[in-house]
Amino acid sequence: MQVVVPFSATDPKTRLADVLAPDERREFSLAMLEDVLSAIRATGQEPRVLTTSSIDIDAPQTVDSRPLTPAVNDVLAEGEPTEPTAIVMADLALATPEVLEQLFSTAGDVVLAPGRGGGTNALVSRHPDFRVDYHGTSYLDHCRIAGDVGASVVEVDSHRLATDVDESGDLAEVLMHSDGAACKWLRKAGFSLSVTEGRVEASREQRIEEKNR
Amino acid sequence: MQVVVPFSATDPKTRLADVLAPDERREFSLAMLEDVLSAIRATGQEPRVLTTSSIDIDAPQTVDSRPLTPAVNDVLAEGEPTEPTAIVMADLALATPEVLEQLFSTAGDVVLAPGRGGGTNALVSRHPDFRVDYHGTSYLDHCRIAGDVGASVVEVDSHRLATDVDESGDLAEVLMHSDGAACKWLRKAGFSLSVTEGRVEASREQRIEEKNR
Repeated sequence: MQVVVPFSATDPKTRLADVLAPDERREFSLAMLEDVLSAIRATGQEPRVLTTSSIDIDAPQTVDSRPLTPAVNDVLAEGEPTEPTAIVMADLALATPEVLEQLFSTAGDVVLAPGRGGGTNALVSRHPDFRVDYHGTSYLDHCRIAGDVGASVVEVDSHRLATDVDESGDLAEVLMHSDGAACKWLRKAGFSLSVTEGRVEASREQRIEEKNR
Repeated sequence: MQVVVPFSATDPKTRLADVLAPDERREFSLAMLEDVLSAIRATGQEPRVLTTSSIDIDAPQTVDSRPLTPAVNDVLAEGEPTEPTAIVMADLALATPEVLEQLFSTAGDVVLAPGRGGGTNALVSRHPDFRVDYHGTSYLDHCRIAGDVGASVVEVDSHRLATDVDESGDLAEVLMHSDGAACKWLRKAGFSLSVTEGRVEASREQRIEEKNR
């Protein structure tokens, strides 16, 4: 199985701009990538990073500056017909070897791990004609595309894989359910769990505006 | 195993007040309860509803007007010492018989299904001294409480069980991943999926302000 991790190296994680400065977003996204690569390696697979520009990381990388969908579709088209391809997003900071092993070992032409909000956070394709379309409700689109090429679809139901870390509300999930590089980065940056009106949030000891003064 | 579903019958789902009128919130919460009860019954278990006041539903019910934590703790304290108790929240509209069967059959003194945001959406207790505390980060609190009484803890990692339907952002999950009573209720009330700036939301054909004029 080839396991590919797409990474957006240019201005990553813009929806975290309300809580993280641009340099911090880049550091945090690399910490999450490190966690994802470690979890994949612990399953015995050797991940490859598909990045929009060259990055300093200890893993094989392919640079493709195009948007996610055509870049991933080239990976799917160029794979060996008999070798499955897994696409695992780089911001799955809660991913564990156990849940990735479940993803990789689940039988099905196309195995999808839906993300919260309708995305597709991880998938395995064993069908030569399956292609991706990450725009919009990609989970529903991928179910349809698989159906169109006659591929069976199986869902992997996982909170860890459903949680892509995009917004400030997702940071609490990292603090609660991970002890990896991304969690350590957040704690070092001053984030901790706080309970406000019965809901859990990640709060920061120092506001970003103050820090940048 | 006794399976108990706590239900808040008085002014339920206040965090959906921006998109649903009070009567609608009550109808929608009963539709979700119906889905949860059906999914539990499909596993072969007979659920009992623990409700803050009497409701019109075809299931055994116990009325307890106290807050969630003391009401559930009485259920845990009064259970037969040898019989496991499962507590499944009434707003898990994405729950399937498969994932509930996984919850019920997972070995462990205390089995926890964390909710997004630090809650505990479902649990099984097989330890006579385990008690709940649903305030704040109950998932972390329940891990600690289990540790204090010497009970082993096992996590069930499920997006379906992690998704309690509390806020408007959660409605899209129901529309995408369910075809039960709650999904049908939403569609009948005019909700459908829409994609805004690459993100998926549940939007309504008619604004609530207009409807109430």
